[in-house]
Amino acid sequence: MFKLIKEDKDTKARTGEFRTRSGTVRTPAFFPVATQAAVKGISPRELNEIGLEGLLVNSYHLYLRPGVEVIKKGGGLHKFMNFDKTIITDSGGYQIFSLEKLRKVSDEGVEFQSHIDGSTHFLSPEDAIRVQLELGADVVVQLDECLKYPCSYEEAKIASDRTVRWAKKGFDFFKKHSKDKALFFGIVQGSIYEDLRKQCLKELLALGIDGLCIGGLSVGEPQDLRYNMLSIIEQNTDKCGFRYFMGYGRPRDIINAVSLGVDLFDCVVPTRYARTGTAFNSEGKIVIRNAPYTTDVRPLDEECSCYVCKNFSRAYLRHLINAKEILGVQLLTYHNIFWYHTLMDKIRTAIEKGCFAEFKNAFLTEFKED
Amino acid sequence: MFKLIKEDKDTKARTGEFRTRSGTVRTPAFFPVATQAAVKGISPRELNEIGLEGLLVNSYHLYLRPGVEVIKKGGGLHKFMNFDKTIITDSGGYQIFSLEKLRKVSDEGVEFQSHIDGSTHFLSPEDAIRVQLELGADVVVQLDECLKYPCSYEEAKIASDRTVRWAKKGFDFFKKHSKDKALFFGIVQGSIYEDLRKQCLKELLALGIDGLCIGGLSVGEPQDLRYNMLSIIEQNTDKCGFRYFMGYGRPRDIINAVSLGVDLFDCVVPTRYARTGTAFNSEGKIVIRNAPYTTDVRPLDEECSCYVCKNFSRAYLRHLINAKEILGVQLLTYHNIFWYHTLMDKIRTAIEKGCFAEFKNAFLTEFKED
Repeated sequence: MFKLIKEDKDTKARTGEFRTRSGTVRTPAFFPVATQAAVKGISPRELNEIGLEGLLVNSYHLYLRPGVEVIKKGGGLHKFMNFDKTIITDSGGYQIFSLEKLRKVSDEGVEFQSHIDGSTHFLSPEDAIRVQLELGADVVVQLDECLKYPCSYEEAKIASDRTVRWAKKGFDFFKKHSKDKALFFGIVQGSIYEDLRKQCLKELLALGIDGLCIGGLSVGEPQDLRYNMLSIIEQNTDKCGFRYFMGYGRPRDIINAVSLGVDLFDCVVPTRYARTGTAFNSEGKIVIRNAPYTTDVRPLDEECSCYVCKNFSRAYLRHLINAKEILGVQLLTYHNIFWYHTLMDKIRTAIEKGCFAEFKNAFLTEFKED
Repeated sequence: MFKLIKEDKDTKARTGEFRTRSGTVRTPAFFPVATQAAVKGISPRELNEIGLEGLLVNSYHLYLRPGVEVIKKGGGLHKFMNFDKTIITDSGGYQIFSLEKLRKVSDEGVEFQSHIDGSTHFLSPEDAIRVQLELGADVVVQLDECLKYPCSYEEAKIASDRTVRWAKKGFDFFKKHSKDKALFFGIVQGSIYEDLRKQCLKELLALGIDGLCIGGLSVGEPQDLRYNMLSIIEQNTDKCGFRYFMGYGRPRDIINAVSLGVDLFDCVVPTRYARTGTAFNSEGKIVIRNAPYTTDVRPLDEECSCYVCKNFSRAYLRHLINAKEILGVQLLTYHNIFWYHTLMDKIRTAIEKGCFAEFKNAFLTEFKED
């Protein structure tokens, strides 16, 4: 459950503690994504060394491979992947709705075809919760219907209403079958339509859910519309409610969304960028394969204290990435996750000290993302 | 330099200490291969954790990419790759002679074309040493001419004589230019011809080289011929001489070669097998992607105390490899290198305790490699 600690005086940013049966997450927080029960390129003991307090795992992927039974027999997700901190699973909805051609939606649920072998599967709102409970997640998330931008008001209303009905069904199932203090999160939909967002929020919060996921944003809409929706959501939730913006999290995005009241993020960016040879530092991004780094003996980030920055030069990392050495991906992944973790530390510290607005302005000025 | 410690009573196995300016290597020893200044899939701090006392690095690869200048500017190989134990470089000869169509050999040296961009390069016996000294290797190895099996006596004699001449040229260059107590190794050639091997050995050892590499074996010849040559080499070198069988090292091969007096091995097998999803254990090899491991909660090797065996099941590792997760390769690599390191520990202990012959027989009976 969420405990609000400090509210920023200038923005909607706040610090808090999100407590699950597996530990406490200091917020605002960022969770790396362990799509298939592994964060690509980094071991769980390295995640612990960095200080990560949680992960997001994709239940759609695990449902298909290796399958729920394998993970159950392996003692549940925490034991299977050897990570004892907080694990949130998603419902699979986002992945399924990304398979444009491979799904049929009805009020009963969603039929889809596996991207691995083409086999047909059906997932009801109750199934989605059952899968996540069987995987052993600390926090389970309702099945939702996520639309891309743009979509008409009518389409958005149908999806939003259905999402609320699925939340009720999922939460009923959850209350009957969950054990050991797992938590249940709903997802607010409604595209860019203010009244749909408000209506959806009102009905979800009335259910007594443990936290709110922000869905249906970062799906192609202009930034100002996205921020407007985040404001609407902030204004229409209790300040003691927990807000998790799923699948979102480039550095500038995080700073802006924190200032609009978001508490938690997950995103594949730090790991995916590492695999393409891109590292973060205080000035922005370093595309390490580029020629200027050929004999650059400096660390990736001169202000970073991670294992990689203490021990390896840009020249060496460039060589590894250019030579397609797997170690290059490992080291960049470690650095990027450490760098994100440190960014969240700095954000929390700025809020605690009452200087988040200055921090935000300085960051947005200095940090060149593109 | 090599210090003989204990000779086995039943075989030619022995323990010893090989000292370089970067540390002591307890022998018999196995060095993983850091082809491009990185052991594929594992970080140097993990190598240190395992207790590795040395690595082999391929100077051919580094000469082409990133180039000697980059590594010199990066402070030399040890600093560049952040590994402070013993580093041996090879001369590049083996790689160049593997490029069948891409080379021209004369007494002056070898002309070859880069496998990366097709550019033409020339390497003399002196160049080969200069490159390795500039890279900062603790042990440099002469340029040699390595033939495949079978080859005629005449071909083998030409290559063996040329290898001796190149050893002299290389060693002269080394004595003039090396600093800080680097060591120089020669390579014995001569294919499967006893008198050529003896002649080559005699001339190499007369030079006063610091150690002997065994070349031109494991190039397609039958096993009994190989073992016969190892015996000839053992009988014709002083027992205080150090013997390094380059590029050789499947587990059964190591046991047999140790019993014929070999002190050091390097081989890509533990890392390459890991990348294809194969792990070693006390019974032999586990091909982890196979169906029998789907829900197998046991560790890869029930007798192994490594990080991977203490924390992950076969079921999880199988999932990672099948899902093409990079973490699967990382974990199998860590285990395989640890397993090899432990194997060498056991070999040394058996020799020290005077029971190497029993250890060898038991191992060859129990361990099923293929």
